[in-house]
Amino acid sequence: MVEIIKYPQRAAWPQYMKRTDGSDDAAVRSSVARIIDDVERRGDDALRDYSVQFDGCRIDTFRVGDDEMNAACLIVDYNLKQAINVAAANIHKFHAAELPGEVAVEVAPGIDCRQRAVPISRVGLYAPGGNSPLFSTVLMLAVPARISGCREVVLCTPPRRDGTVDPAILYAAQVAGVSDVFKVGGAQAIAAMTVGTESIKPVYKIFGPGNRYVTEAKLQANMRGVAIDMPAGPSEVMVIADGQADATFVASDFLSQAEHGADSQSILLTTDEGLAHAVVQSVAGLLELLPRQQLAMQSLAGSRVILLHDDDEMMQFANMYAPEHLIINHADAERLALKVESAGSVFLGAFSPESAGDYASGTNHTLPTGGWARSYSGVNIDSFMKKITFQRLSRSGLASIAPAITTMARGEGLYAHSLAVEVRLNNDKNS
Amino acid sequence: MVEIIKYPQRAAWPQYMKRTDGSDDAAVRSSVARIIDDVERRGDDALRDYSVQFDGCRIDTFRVGDDEMNAACLIVDYNLKQAINVAAANIHKFHAAELPGEVAVEVAPGIDCRQRAVPISRVGLYAPGGNSPLFSTVLMLAVPARISGCREVVLCTPPRRDGTVDPAILYAAQVAGVSDVFKVGGAQAIAAMTVGTESIKPVYKIFGPGNRYVTEAKLQANMRGVAIDMPAGPSEVMVIADGQADATFVASDFLSQAEHGADSQSILLTTDEGLAHAVVQSVAGLLELLPRQQLAMQSLAGSRVILLHDDDEMMQFANMYAPEHLIINHADAERLALKVESAGSVFLGAFSPESAGDYASGTNHTLPTGGWARSYSGVNIDSFMKKITFQRLSRSGLASIAPAITTMARGEGLYAHSLAVEVRLNNDKNS
Repeated sequence: MVEIIKYPQRAAWPQYMKRTDGSDDAAVRSSVARIIDDVERRGDDALRDYSVQFDGCRIDTFRVGDDEMNAACLIVDYNLKQAINVAAANIHKFHAAELPGEVAVEVAPGIDCRQRAVPISRVGLYAPGGNSPLFSTVLMLAVPARISGCREVVLCTPPRRDGTVDPAILYAAQVAGVSDVFKVGGAQAIAAMTVGTESIKPVYKIFGPGNRYVTEAKLQANMRGVAIDMPAGPSEVMVIADGQADATFVASDFLSQAEHGADSQSILLTTDEGLAHAVVQSVAGLLELLPRQQLAMQSLAGSRVILLHDDDEMMQFANMYAPEHLIINHADAERLALKVESAGSVFLGAFSPESAGDYASGTNHTLPTGGWARSYSGVNIDSFMKKITFQRLSRSGLASIAPAITTMARGEGLYAHSLAVEVRLNNDKNS
Repeated sequence: MVEIIKYPQRAAWPQYMKRTDGSDDAAVRSSVARIIDDVERRGDDALRDYSVQFDGCRIDTFRVGDDEMNAACLIVDYNLKQAINVAAANIHKFHAAELPGEVAVEVAPGIDCRQRAVPISRVGLYAPGGNSPLFSTVLMLAVPARISGCREVVLCTPPRRDGTVDPAILYAAQVAGVSDVFKVGGAQAIAAMTVGTESIKPVYKIFGPGNRYVTEAKLQANMRGVAIDMPAGPSEVMVIADGQADATFVASDFLSQAEHGADSQSILLTTDEGLAHAVVQSVAGLLELLPRQQLAMQSLAGSRVILLHDDDEMMQFANMYAPEHLIINHADAERLALKVESAGSVFLGAFSPESAGDYASGTNHTLPTGGWARSYSGVNIDSFMKKITFQRLSRSGLASIAPAITTMARGEGLYAHSLAVEVRLNNDKNS
């Protein structure tokens, strides 16, 4: 079911790095553009119509009220609450440690430069609902938003057919400290956070996963002046394993990825042919145990096991592919970790499955896919802040670099830039 | 020439925050798309044709050779070299201080999580040439790229009509440690760094300012999978000044901005009506001294002086506008600085003109415009790095959060995610 590719020539590597999908659908693009325009024109009324159309329910008040929030939190299963609490605490602990300090440098006497991280004042989060209510994503986005100090953290999530929101999503929102939850889903939710409606104020940055409509809406939001966390695509895992790895562990990592969707991709790089065959067999065996077999089988058809000659080749291949998740199940995991150049999040050793980071170890699970890990970070504290520079020069500090400034400004033909220095230094009353 | 607006009602604020321009030109879009497709198809041949068409010269070898580089550096004026050296040293000093450390947290016993900043391996910089060769931009981009550890730092810049590159640009590139300089300008340069040609390898992230074609090409590069530093638009400055400010200083700051281009914008916020009038008068007087009067007058027509009641109003207005440059020429500059929520770079006190940061104080001058400072940082060390998370769990560490992971995974309908934990813990041989 999973193809094994033996020792491919380097020239052939790129073909084995192809992602399953790069869908660029003009129909999706134009229907999303129509939705955003409509929400801009008709506000809440447009949201109501889309809710009838897409969610199958009529919503009068989009904001989840305090009573609804409290009631929902009461009915969440006790074990699930405990699980969410553990995850939230670990996510908090790790992300709080990421908070950047102020940088302050006296570049030269009288020239003080600083860099300070300042939170984005209003951010919007999106959590898909439907069959898989992603309460884990609520934690992954809202906990760091709060640590960063964002003043308003709003969450949009689609209502169920009965007009309510999945209680676990509301519980996670409450634990994480979301300011307001709105029962709006799909492209219309992204539209509302972009252009604003009577109920929902526009935000400065939008975070979160979603289907093709949501993803396209985020791209269009970006063109309209709202920042987004990152371009999103199908999920993927790459496993690097040597002969000591347990084939069952690797197979379970493949299947974790495969159950995400038909376009998810799993790739195993190994130097051990025995392991390669054992993993393929184990995948087939474990698959029998799972409910989402059809979906997983489609995904596995686009997945691969690749035999390579040595550790260096494996790391080169991994860095070129730039996986969202990289599991290094290898005796020398720590040494190989130092060679990672492009990956979203890296899992070291036999007991670090991707699901640990997906839920509860503390790292973020909102990560760059489709090769974007070459240039993008996953969501982290920086994602919710801007780094603003400040400088204060004394008269003598300015005088000390005045020749550099005026010479360069004139060299670039910018005479007023030079003048701004000269008027400050030539003016006797300020000396 | 510059309009004074007295104590506008809060409801009227947004109209005084409008930027001069939001050009979205379908003709530019389609001609850039054609250029990128053409460069993808014909590679260097396409670049050569565009060079004849746009730069008026025929280029055989795009890469600037060592001889050309060394010769160019010899003929740069000694004072300009010294100025560039001072600026490069200060930029280096400040940006080196921004380098993030590794974050390492034992979230719980046996659960080690880390975040490490890893440089983007190949980045592409663009520096406009023509009438204003922006050698300062070369320093602002290449110095931090090198500090970050980017392995390959390539620079594209347009050739002059005689087929050479401005020597000051080459000198700045050499000082900053650029790997390769290519004589290619305009949208075709961005295209080459995006899709690659025989001479120029594709990069993972593109930085730098440019005209509308370059800016549009960067947006299209982004849609094709290459990251960009930020959306770029016309430059802008906001000055906050109280009665103690020298009107000439403020006027020179207005003119520094105005000489950038007809669509640049300067806004003064002040509580002092006397200063407001004095600044308007001084602008008219200083303008006489400058060579680029026509350009500056167009820009000044879109600029404003706004009288407000108190410091709080000024800071609220500034944060809503989110200026690229914010000069706080005010007795209480440090106190107001603490209230800055959205700005690219902030200049405190009477002797900190924007030109200090534009050239030589050490902060970066590549900053978010058009209100993007609400969500984007200016270029800084982070811009050249990804923050990658790593985790290593021991068997007992995984066991300690296994209930949280498996409960949440099942709650989201992701059974294989749960299985990946169970196979690791249920397997006796690993205990």
